[in-house]
Amino acid sequence: MHRAPDSFAGYGRGVALVTIDDISDAANRIEGLVLRTPLVDNQVLSHEFGTRVLLKAENLQHAGSFKVRGALNTLLTWQERGELPEGVVSFSAGNHAAAVAYAGKRLGVRVIVAMPSNPVPSKVANVRRFGGEIVPTDDLAATLAELAEEHGFPILHPFDQPEVIAGQGTAGLELCADGPPPDLVLVPVGGGGLLSGVAAAVRKLAPSARVVGVEPATSNAMSQSLAAGKVVRIDNPSATVADGLTAPFAGEHTLPHVQAYVDDVVEVDEAAISAAWPELIESSKLLVEPASAVCLAALRSGVVEAPRDGVTVLVVSGGNADLTRLA
Amino acid sequence: MHRAPDSFAGYGRGVALVTIDDISDAANRIEGLVLRTPLVDNQVLSHEFGTRVLLKAENLQHAGSFKVRGALNTLLTWQERGELPEGVVSFSAGNHAAAVAYAGKRLGVRVIVAMPSNPVPSKVANVRRFGGEIVPTDDLAATLAELAEEHGFPILHPFDQPEVIAGQGTAGLELCADGPPPDLVLVPVGGGGLLSGVAAAVRKLAPSARVVGVEPATSNAMSQSLAAGKVVRIDNPSATVADGLTAPFAGEHTLPHVQAYVDDVVEVDEAAISAAWPELIESSKLLVEPASAVCLAALRSGVVEAPRDGVTVLVVSGGNADLTRLA
Repeated sequence: MHRAPDSFAGYGRGVALVTIDDISDAANRIEGLVLRTPLVDNQVLSHEFGTRVLLKAENLQHAGSFKVRGALNTLLTWQERGELPEGVVSFSAGNHAAAVAYAGKRLGVRVIVAMPSNPVPSKVANVRRFGGEIVPTDDLAATLAELAEEHGFPILHPFDQPEVIAGQGTAGLELCADGPPPDLVLVPVGGGGLLSGVAAAVRKLAPSARVVGVEPATSNAMSQSLAAGKVVRIDNPSATVADGLTAPFAGEHTLPHVQAYVDDVVEVDEAAISAAWPELIESSKLLVEPASAVCLAALRSGVVEAPRDGVTVLVVSGGNADLTRLA
Repeated sequence: MHRAPDSFAGYGRGVALVTIDDISDAANRIEGLVLRTPLVDNQVLSHEFGTRVLLKAENLQHAGSFKVRGALNTLLTWQERGELPEGVVSFSAGNHAAAVAYAGKRLGVRVIVAMPSNPVPSKVANVRRFGGEIVPTDDLAATLAELAEEHGFPILHPFDQPEVIAGQGTAGLELCADGPPPDLVLVPVGGGGLLSGVAAAVRKLAPSARVVGVEPATSNAMSQSLAAGKVVRIDNPSATVADGLTAPFAGEHTLPHVQAYVDDVVEVDEAAISAAWPELIESSKLLVEPASAVCLAALRSGVVEAPRDGVTVLVVSGGNADLTRLA
């Protein structure tokens, strides 16, 4: 596990799809270290869309997002193999960085993360709270490679590793176990780790459910990759209010998972995300980050139709938001 | 039950204290109509105060606050007695109004509420969503009396009725049943209905716990009443950012409950509430209203000391907040 990555997204080549067994194993591994977050009924949105709307509230998760699931599953898998490294490096807009710092602190692993030079302040505070070391950069890929080289630490990737995908899938396993059988599951898409894992779980546990990923139209690496049939890299993904969804590419692992398990990936524009964000907060009484609002934006803008009299689950990815941007 | 009230706070004179049996009865009565809201661990505040901080998240309750508990218990009690009225009148800063509207809609009872002429917009929307009729006024007491007279409907009081106190007490019953035994329970105080009910439950179910009420220094009717040993009316309670806590008096019922069951009532200033509000939201990832921040303000300002290595429960009263005020 200490081998150097051959490229930004190339870590862990030789793609096999994560299965429900991998996700169940991950759930056992991380039990007690992550919260089993509630599925929260949203009466306001249920009334509006004529479907029962449930929110899988990963904003309440440790470190403020679903990302601890994948980070912990990866480190614990390495530990089981006797390969727990002294330190790890990663890159992140913030949520994954905080999650790796949280996981590293629990397991005594040093954490160094490359982050954009203008991150959300609460995300920086979140990383530092757990002792993570931040290296600000305008070139995440180059800095990550340099850090891996300099320290000789493995990369704990924000989305493109099987252990990460299996860990994120535990959120899907829980939403199927804790609520009524879903007819539609909506998942925000950055690099596609959450969507890949959740879809792998839902496809098996609720086979009749539609699983749809939602990404900002201005940062649509997954949609472009699906259209091209291969990983597409966006050198400069445009700014989006959904700051958690700015991955510059879909992954070598996540793309085949999405191709295999996901019904559709749709895009929403910035105005729809900006409008949906406070509405999701007010209707749910949960502090959610803008990235989590893309799913509501998809329902509102009509690119996804809610199943009439059915059950719709919105996966709320995180809650590390800048409150001053709500005004 | 259709008799006219003899005074604003005089409804239901002849004070007997609500008991744990009354609260258990209320819990059975309202089961299925209210949410059993989660007790949410707050790691950030736990770390800061060296005590395990749990939030009783009534912001997630139907209609956005704990108030549905008392409103439903009152209407259902009247219904059991064959005295369910055609309509009820009340007054409210907003949360109780929405709760009565919600309860009235469930039971087919018309709801007319006097509200301040400059309420929080989301609170008005919340009342209208459930079909409540709003009468704006700058004199809640006079308008309430007029409405009761005009329609011949009974008052469903926001805090000063035994059925209301017993209903609010179900939140205390749940927090004792669902979490570790608390050492300290902090409750926001307006008219004192929530504090009275929660204290009645906690005093019995967790006898060693301290129960402390917290009110804004600028709207401190309960503190003044405790000092005077009788109900003190504040003709013009000063404005407070904690808009849910502007009751102009402690109640004829709530005062003796607080005297009997509560360890202390403390005051916090506006600056402390304003600072605590966004911090409570960011650390909990819950949308809470400013009134719910008085408990954190009390810990921060040192007027209440957290039990070292103990368990502290903050009762989060509601989530009907104006997001634009967060900037």
